[in-house]
Amino acid sequence: MHALFFDHGIRYLNDFPVPQPNKNEALIKVICTGICNTDLEIIKGYMGFTGIPGHEFVGIVEASENDHLKGKRVVGDINISCGECLYCKQGLRNHCPERSVLGILNKNGAFAEYLTLPVNNLHQVPDTVSDGEAVFVEPLAAAFEVLKQVNITESDKVCVLGDGKLGLLVAQVLSTTGANLITVGKHPDKLSILSRMGIETHVLSSFDENEFDIVVDCTGSRSGIEKALKIVKPGGKVVLKTTVAEKGAVDLNHIVINEISLIGSRCGPFPDAIDAIVSKKVDLLPLISAEYNLEEGLKALEHASRKGILKIILKVV
Amino acid sequence: MHALFFDHGIRYLNDFPVPQPNKNEALIKVICTGICNTDLEIIKGYMGFTGIPGHEFVGIVEASENDHLKGKRVVGDINISCGECLYCKQGLRNHCPERSVLGILNKNGAFAEYLTLPVNNLHQVPDTVSDGEAVFVEPLAAAFEVLKQVNITESDKVCVLGDGKLGLLVAQVLSTTGANLITVGKHPDKLSILSRMGIETHVLSSFDENEFDIVVDCTGSRSGIEKALKIVKPGGKVVLKTTVAEKGAVDLNHIVINEISLIGSRCGPFPDAIDAIVSKKVDLLPLISAEYNLEEGLKALEHASRKGILKIILKVV
Repeated sequence: MHALFFDHGIRYLNDFPVPQPNKNEALIKVICTGICNTDLEIIKGYMGFTGIPGHEFVGIVEASENDHLKGKRVVGDINISCGECLYCKQGLRNHCPERSVLGILNKNGAFAEYLTLPVNNLHQVPDTVSDGEAVFVEPLAAAFEVLKQVNITESDKVCVLGDGKLGLLVAQVLSTTGANLITVGKHPDKLSILSRMGIETHVLSSFDENEFDIVVDCTGSRSGIEKALKIVKPGGKVVLKTTVAEKGAVDLNHIVINEISLIGSRCGPFPDAIDAIVSKKVDLLPLISAEYNLEEGLKALEHASRKGILKIILKVV
Repeated sequence: MHALFFDHGIRYLNDFPVPQPNKNEALIKVICTGICNTDLEIIKGYMGFTGIPGHEFVGIVEASENDHLKGKRVVGDINISCGECLYCKQGLRNHCPERSVLGILNKNGAFAEYLTLPVNNLHQVPDTVSDGEAVFVEPLAAAFEVLKQVNITESDKVCVLGDGKLGLLVAQVLSTTGANLITVGKHPDKLSILSRMGIETHVLSSFDENEFDIVVDCTGSRSGIEKALKIVKPGGKVVLKTTVAEKGAVDLNHIVINEISLIGSRCGPFPDAIDAIVSKKVDLLPLISAEYNLEEGLKALEHASRKGILKIILKVV
């Protein structure tokens, strides 16, 4: 099959073997797949991953022991957990120490014609959701994780920092709470996607507010975290939504003296994301910057890595 | 009056003027006062404080517009807030940006014969509480702050890191929850104070457990925080109870990937601390390493700064 493969570098292959599903897995023919910043990090060596990257996808079940799934359009939870350990039994499947992660850890991913995933990881996509929208279910679920971790009410003053792909999704999800929400970014064109939806936005240079109850950092940068700690009010919460490649000192004394909670946040609930798309609570298609065929994958990855680019889609079928 | 005074160094003075209480303040004759690690930092220059240090005390109200307080034995909340700002109105008085802090920020403290505090900051000490116990109300309240911030139940596995003064208080407070509690320290003699109370303790070198739901770091060291992040389980909480002088990198990616919450924690509720002493839920007197008269203050501070020393008390009256 056709696939993008990473070991020392990223390559396009047209003779990669079609994966064989295990007993509890389905074989999925990928329709299209999105390029995430994590993919861009992985092809720089992050996680020490070797194999086919890619973890945002929508596809058709081609083979499964579960007959009713065959021919169904699905998206898939990327964490493949053991189901047996203490974490799995406590509902912390995403943190299973034995887990593999689609396209990230010990499991070939979605930049290919076919992938396999456990049947339990699959979520059917309703007919009213387009392929282009379905590709966003995984990152949109990650945005919904914030609402699982932090109780946000209408009386809260909330700031989303960052107008990249994840920032725009988190802002849309948080706006569903009715909170007093501001999104701060660097790019007026990206922020306009939110302002068209009625979400208040500010360009960073003009922004000096503080005193937020909750700040969600989606910048992926050290300076973003520092900004978040500065603008959150004492007793408030800072949610870290993105991993940061740079290491650096965080002022822990500031966290202690101001009793701030710093909350790491990763993958989230797929059903909430699908429901939000079905009920038109989010507007995803404006986040697509360009589409490429899988064969043009290297060009697509280069495009995705340029500054200011939002979601790049790889069409596989 | 007699006092210890810090500007470029710490000095003993016998001619410092007795403070004059403002309209809403009481004049308090100090009975005794405890030396806290923060005091030791302050006399090294922390907070840029100039004046009389000391914030743990018990004393007698000598003058107050509030007649019923006169002659009463009291302890006092150290944060002096404006009462007018948004923080104060939202119940965040300890975070009032206009606040002064007894012996720490713009307010002379307790290493003296007299101090003044707003009447609203004072808490009467029941007769069953000794002076030696009353000196611990302020740090014990800080230990109770953890229970205000984190819901701890009998099913939680909890670790307190650090067997200094604050670690021993936090461990005693957390043991009242019935949680599965372990305290990890470096000093068998200090840990024995807890093991005599039935609290499980481990010496660090023999300790390799992990998977705690909640870890409270009371080490005041960078390595303590790193250890805390290592032994907390994914989705768990790390409470930072102490400020750390050293700067250094914390692995924020570890916090994101494992969805850990890092929670800063400072001052706490005095009534909870007083209740715990009255009802004998805590055992404080074994934490006293030595007592000195105020005149021997410099010697007392030197003693308090030695490794392995717990609480040093200055007797003023």
